Amino acid sequence: MKAILTTLAAIATLPAWAADAVVPYPEGYRAWTHVKSMVIEEGHPLYGSFGGIHHIYANAKAMAGYRSGRFPDGAVIVFDLLEASRADNAVTEGTRKVAGVMHKDQKRYASTGGWGFEGFAGGDKAQRVVGKEAESACFACHAPQKARDYVFSSLRD
Amino acid sequence: MKAILTTLAAIATLPAWAADAVVPYPEGYRAWTHVKSMVIEEGHPLYGSFGGIHHIYANAKAMAGYRSGRFPDGAVIVFDLLEASRADNAVTEGTRKVAGVMHKDQKRYASTGGWGFEGFAGGDKAQRVVGKEAESACFACHAPQKARDYVFSSLRD
Repeated sequence: MKAILTTLAAIATLPAWAADAVVPYPEGYRAWTHVKSMVIEEGHPLYGSFGGIHHIYANAKAMAGYRSGRFPDGAVIVFDLLEASRADNAVTEGTRKVAGVMHKDQKRYASTGGWGFEGFAGGDKAQRVVGKEAESACFACHAPQKARDYVFSSLRD
Repeated sequence: MKAILTTLAAIATLPAWAADAVVPYPEGYRAWTHVKSMVIEEGHPLYGSFGGIHHIYANAKAMAGYRSGRFPDGAVIVFDLLEASRADNAVTEGTRKVAGVMHKDQKRYASTGGWGFEGFAGGDKAQRVVGKEAESACFACHAPQKARDYVFSSLRD
């Protein structure tokens, strides 16, 4: 009985729309490999969604994907967006705006190129900002990157 | 005889001034934990030395040091400085200007707070830009940070 209640409780915390397509929060990503960074400022076409300083992190499978050009299931890329403050001729990092996630699973996320997309507002694993809108909110812009397995970033030295 | 020649050859490739105080190149640091980042622009007092976008990386011992406030021998922190290009309302990364290193070893670097300091121009392990000037070129500015074991950066979320 206790096991059943625990299971029901776990299910209840998942979004109702498609429990099996939920993108997991990327536990421990701050210790993954830092791929690259960029600052997006006012006036940039992506400022509304991505204004601030962002860092890209990749887990080991995603690193293999960057190198080979094809990302295996289990590859996870995090787009970690922080406020950027310009003052005294420097840009410094502020609080986290969102932790964006791409999680590769060919079967679960077949309708969006094999990638699950999610965003965690403020980095809070309970605050999902994409949910079932992945196709319009994320994949629409990533689709033209098909030749690169839908990924924009690439490794640098 | 071969062993002796090999040893002599190894010694010959080290700077003459103090072979035992040479700071090792931080092999593999790009896969270490990314601590934080900052952009320093024209007009900033440190622009001449540190203009660009820099990322701080820490090995496992340095991560322990950040958490405890005291960095153990073997802790290594890398200040990885890249060109920063501002265009179209974005700041993007360019080529590496220098990979700066702090390497903790109480005995070897006793005269500079237990930290060895070095910079590798362009990230080239053969292009050392600090050498025996660590005291004036690096430690003079780090000395006031004594209460924090001479480190400026700190962990963020």
